[in-house]
Amino acid sequence: MAVYLDNNSTTALEPEVLDVMLPYLKDIHGNPSSVHRYGRLTRNAIEQARHQVANLAGAQPEQVIFTSGGTEANNLAILGALSNKVPAHLAVSSIEHASVIEPAKILINSGWKLDLIPVDAACNISAENIESVVSDDTCLISVMMANNETGVIQDIKHLNQHIQSEKVLFHSDASQVAGKLPVNFAEMKIDMMTLSSHKIYGPQGAGALIVNRSVELEPIIYGGGQERGLRNGTENIAAIVGFGAAAELAGQQIEDINKYLRTMRDALQSELANMPGITLFAAQSDRLPNTLQFAVDDFDGEALLMHLDKQGIAVSSGSACHSKAGIPSHVLLAMGVAPELAKNAIRISFGKHNRMDDVHVFLHALKEITLTQHQSMRVG
Amino acid sequence: MAVYLDNNSTTALEPEVLDVMLPYLKDIHGNPSSVHRYGRLTRNAIEQARHQVANLAGAQPEQVIFTSGGTEANNLAILGALSNKVPAHLAVSSIEHASVIEPAKILINSGWKLDLIPVDAACNISAENIESVVSDDTCLISVMMANNETGVIQDIKHLNQHIQSEKVLFHSDASQVAGKLPVNFAEMKIDMMTLSSHKIYGPQGAGALIVNRSVELEPIIYGGGQERGLRNGTENIAAIVGFGAAAELAGQQIEDINKYLRTMRDALQSELANMPGITLFAAQSDRLPNTLQFAVDDFDGEALLMHLDKQGIAVSSGSACHSKAGIPSHVLLAMGVAPELAKNAIRISFGKHNRMDDVHVFLHALKEITLTQHQSMRVG
Repeated sequence: MAVYLDNNSTTALEPEVLDVMLPYLKDIHGNPSSVHRYGRLTRNAIEQARHQVANLAGAQPEQVIFTSGGTEANNLAILGALSNKVPAHLAVSSIEHASVIEPAKILINSGWKLDLIPVDAACNISAENIESVVSDDTCLISVMMANNETGVIQDIKHLNQHIQSEKVLFHSDASQVAGKLPVNFAEMKIDMMTLSSHKIYGPQGAGALIVNRSVELEPIIYGGGQERGLRNGTENIAAIVGFGAAAELAGQQIEDINKYLRTMRDALQSELANMPGITLFAAQSDRLPNTLQFAVDDFDGEALLMHLDKQGIAVSSGSACHSKAGIPSHVLLAMGVAPELAKNAIRISFGKHNRMDDVHVFLHALKEITLTQHQSMRVG
Repeated sequence: MAVYLDNNSTTALEPEVLDVMLPYLKDIHGNPSSVHRYGRLTRNAIEQARHQVANLAGAQPEQVIFTSGGTEANNLAILGALSNKVPAHLAVSSIEHASVIEPAKILINSGWKLDLIPVDAACNISAENIESVVSDDTCLISVMMANNETGVIQDIKHLNQHIQSEKVLFHSDASQVAGKLPVNFAEMKIDMMTLSSHKIYGPQGAGALIVNRSVELEPIIYGGGQERGLRNGTENIAAIVGFGAAAELAGQQIEDINKYLRTMRDALQSELANMPGITLFAAQSDRLPNTLQFAVDDFDGEALLMHLDKQGIAVSSGSACHSKAGIPSHVLLAMGVAPELAKNAIRISFGKHNRMDDVHVFLHALKEITLTQHQSMRVG
């Protein structure tokens, strides 16, 4: 029996969304840049998806730039907003996804100064944390709306209000928040926001950067003129259509899903809190309703993941993108967690297809595995 | 009745390919970077696709870097190969797709010198054409294997042999050739080659840059480590799997398809050659078997396209990516075609789903439309 508890890595494509995509994989083929009817059909489909995604994001359709995914959207935000500026200073939070931190680091090569905004032990970023690194030179700040590992939510509206300067662009990666909590780009008054389709039961291969039209953005992929010249290349119609449908569905289901996810996560959390040798991370912070990160004393996270996998249970030892590296989570290290504890971390991320029984199956397996290990350690 | 004659813009997804993709859109969801079984399943699927694409390209699987499409692959070739080098000189042919020319132009901002390699009136590029712009400073040359508008094929192996210098990287965009003619990366001994999935009856959203491992390539999208760190971001599994299946199918069918396409194209061409007031472009050159570009005297290409569209016939007035701009094809202008004739250009590109009857339907419509127009001109 398979139990998938890794929904922050990727979610299963919703059958209802696939149904909306299928006509674009079967009968309707066309290049949206073409003038003829095939072009128009696909162009109209993209514009409908743009409305759907804008609705979920609390944004205007013309603020939506479709990309190949969240990683590209984050790169476009960082590199696209700064590539044409005179090198100065940018600050991204120390717990950002690699797709924010890495392009920010690349800018150092062209003369930019980069600071990582610190977080506290509970994974919270305060206005003071931001102030501690911001200077008159600062052109861009990127703080994610919720962290993919701990699930901790930042108060982006408040943080952005605190930045007084008009010239500082504020970007936020909302990939993990969309579909789980309401997101309102307009209300937060930020400049750029990232969304990802395959985190909201949409297909892989689509994402969006929501951009205030006043931002002078340069593309990172050139030639073709698509997406107002900001994301060139023939559009992935089926994926964009699916992203739109997934966004609409997510908006409709958001309240129910939020409660449903929270029930399972909280049930798991109370059980874990009563088990000896378990450290819960950021458990007192305001978090995504589906996410729980913890460590078992003296049990390597990667090894635990493998044991669970043998029993058909899929979890993560941190961000999927770093799973192969075997290094402790940079998020936990930024929170001040000791490396030897951080490397034991396991992340559980529930999705709407999980059932309460999955919590019990997981707990049963966890107890069995850790008990066996501790017994063998005692014998050894 | 719909007649689709715009297969160089995009091809219909092959039902057989969709069947191979569907499990990855239904039951198998996973992030290939994840360590658990869901991750492994999707990782294995990507590796299989890598072998299939390598086979079609005459390359080794480890030379295949999956991207979101041909445009991204072209950008990766130009920007990724040069971004870490001291600015010097590059040369791309004057008939390249915008996704080669535009990133090349962007490099001018960072100090690179760019030359456009000229073509002759028949759209051919000779070794002398390349020599005319190459200097000791030249780091990269990009010449497409076949042009998307005229269909003219360049002898890439010969041109590359002519470049004696080890330090000049040779890139070729083979998007329009793959699936229509054999492509052999190893035999041509070039450094980089672009392929696109949706030009070979595969899904949109996947492409590949084939790269000789000796090329020091930098990514253009950062953070995550996918594709050996050269194309970061969660992979679009279904699209990659579909690209692989489409590549395998294209390899199996290539000889039959080549002959079949040529029969239709040649039939159309002989009819057009006998019609008054028609100019065929590059008709004597070695061309893709499916492509034919021509102009009708005194009949704007865009207007003709619209008239044909009303009758359910889809053609292109040039590259789909430039269709909205209403400017004459840069390819025809580079061949020395007068702007007033170039703006009349219409491109017909057959695909394997066309039938000989489509040629007759098209010719009938063309005669009717142009006759009506010329009559009304005489009356007027």
